[in-house]
Amino acid sequence: MVRKILFSSDIDDPIGWGKAVRALRPDLDIVNWPDATDPAEFEFALLWKPPPGGLGAYTNLKGIQTLGAGINQLDLSALPPVPLARMIDPSLTESMVDYAVAAVYRHFRGLDRFERNTRARHWQHEEPPHKADFPVGVLGLGVLGGAVAARLRAVGFPVTGWSRTPRPTDGVEVYAGDEGLPPFLASARAFVCVLALTPQTAGILNKDTLAAMPAGSYVINIGRGGHVVEPDLAEAVRNGHIAGATLDVFAKEPLPEDHPFYELPQILVTPHVAGGISPKTAAPTLIENYERALAGKPLLNMVDPTRGY
Amino acid sequence: MVRKILFSSDIDDPIGWGKAVRALRPDLDIVNWPDATDPAEFEFALLWKPPPGGLGAYTNLKGIQTLGAGINQLDLSALPPVPLARMIDPSLTESMVDYAVAAVYRHFRGLDRFERNTRARHWQHEEPPHKADFPVGVLGLGVLGGAVAARLRAVGFPVTGWSRTPRPTDGVEVYAGDEGLPPFLASARAFVCVLALTPQTAGILNKDTLAAMPAGSYVINIGRGGHVVEPDLAEAVRNGHIAGATLDVFAKEPLPEDHPFYELPQILVTPHVAGGISPKTAAPTLIENYERALAGKPLLNMVDPTRGY
Repeated sequence: MVRKILFSSDIDDPIGWGKAVRALRPDLDIVNWPDATDPAEFEFALLWKPPPGGLGAYTNLKGIQTLGAGINQLDLSALPPVPLARMIDPSLTESMVDYAVAAVYRHFRGLDRFERNTRARHWQHEEPPHKADFPVGVLGLGVLGGAVAARLRAVGFPVTGWSRTPRPTDGVEVYAGDEGLPPFLASARAFVCVLALTPQTAGILNKDTLAAMPAGSYVINIGRGGHVVEPDLAEAVRNGHIAGATLDVFAKEPLPEDHPFYELPQILVTPHVAGGISPKTAAPTLIENYERALAGKPLLNMVDPTRGY
Repeated sequence: MVRKILFSSDIDDPIGWGKAVRALRPDLDIVNWPDATDPAEFEFALLWKPPPGGLGAYTNLKGIQTLGAGINQLDLSALPPVPLARMIDPSLTESMVDYAVAAVYRHFRGLDRFERNTRARHWQHEEPPHKADFPVGVLGLGVLGGAVAARLRAVGFPVTGWSRTPRPTDGVEVYAGDEGLPPFLASARAFVCVLALTPQTAGILNKDTLAAMPAGSYVINIGRGGHVVEPDLAEAVRNGHIAGATLDVFAKEPLPEDHPFYELPQILVTPHVAGGISPKTAAPTLIENYERALAGKPLLNMVDPTRGY
């Protein structure tokens, strides 16, 4: 008998997931929610968001695996009271790290300025910069932020980090909590936000924190759109205090065509591409959590609802 | 008595060099050529190019240290027959590596396309790429090319390499000579040129070699302008076979305002900034070679005139 996992997402691919799961476990399959005729037969769900109508009819669910590293796309109060796991896919982590490293190097080597100069047919020589003069500050030192910090450190950037609670990280100068934020903001030239979105971190990149960064700093956001107060960042770029920004996530996506970010040549907009979950590399995690849920064991990367991530 | 080293360059800074040398050796100083009233007192020269009028009057020279990693800015036949050394500065190597890594990551993560989409207010989602699908080919496996290959390998790109003569390089699939060129050109998605410019390598990136690269490849040149047949590259980008290029060196610098490269949004022009020699980190090499020349010993990074580098 083939057992079935409910699938619900408007951005992920149920066919790719089905193939990846069956390749490992021929006795398991993925059923996209419109094809789920008997809700009672599902004991586990893989979802970005619940299906329209919610999960109320799925009375036998024993666990839920999200299709994202974060969970703020979900209304936790609308979910059944079963264990919920975030998806930490090794290829997602590697993608996020790659994106952060690409964005940092682009700003560090001035490729953003040279792009503008190229279009203006303008040639202006300068001396190459040294990484020692370009410390990078990472906001968030969880699985993703820790991996970003480690890679930046490995290629030679001085790295500082900030997290809500202290998280010692090899080779990284770590700051924590409200009292650690001002010295952290003074500690770097480029800031990479990899935080989870919680009531404590929403709007953390705002007028005040941007002003506390050194003049000429760069902002890279691969956390969530809600971390940035967008009009504040636009103003800080417009007045030159922030030299540039690379942004992958926004309050509203796709970013509306009339958004002020598009007016500012120092801002690079990328269409939420920093991280992507690959069914092939993530399927083992899904299957492990499916087994754990059915056995009543704690899931991998389980969400603590009181903490919000 | 203070001994003096002749200095000649229209792009390097004699004051910075003087400070760096005196900090290490108070008995040594740098004299810029217009201030060299007695040519016979100089036994060693540090130069990018010889002073106007040449080095004929400097009859006591025992050695020459160039201010570049390459020597094709020099007419070897016009130099006195004394040992000549290229400058391999650790900070030059690190700068070149940084530039290559920045350019590779920018193309790999599609930041070049997203720049164009941002300016067009166009949002088009795509799945993140995997480094396994983006092998990088390095042309030239000397001190600089070897360091570029090693760093790209360390951050996770598959790396292939080509050199005129076989140079086994850790973790790199190496091709050599004329017969190795076609399989090398088929082996990667991005190509980084770090070759020395010699009669054998001049024009190596031309219509035929560009056509032999996979469709959608990227070209990065931090060697010399003479490695690229510029009209051929412009045409390959125009017709879409080459997806983009990052170019730091050109046949004529500054790149003339009416150059076809400026017409092509897929080409990023940078103003010869990939590598820079830092007096502070390079001064020990200069001093070591000064001592060696006076003692009649072989110089570090000495040029073999028959090989041309």
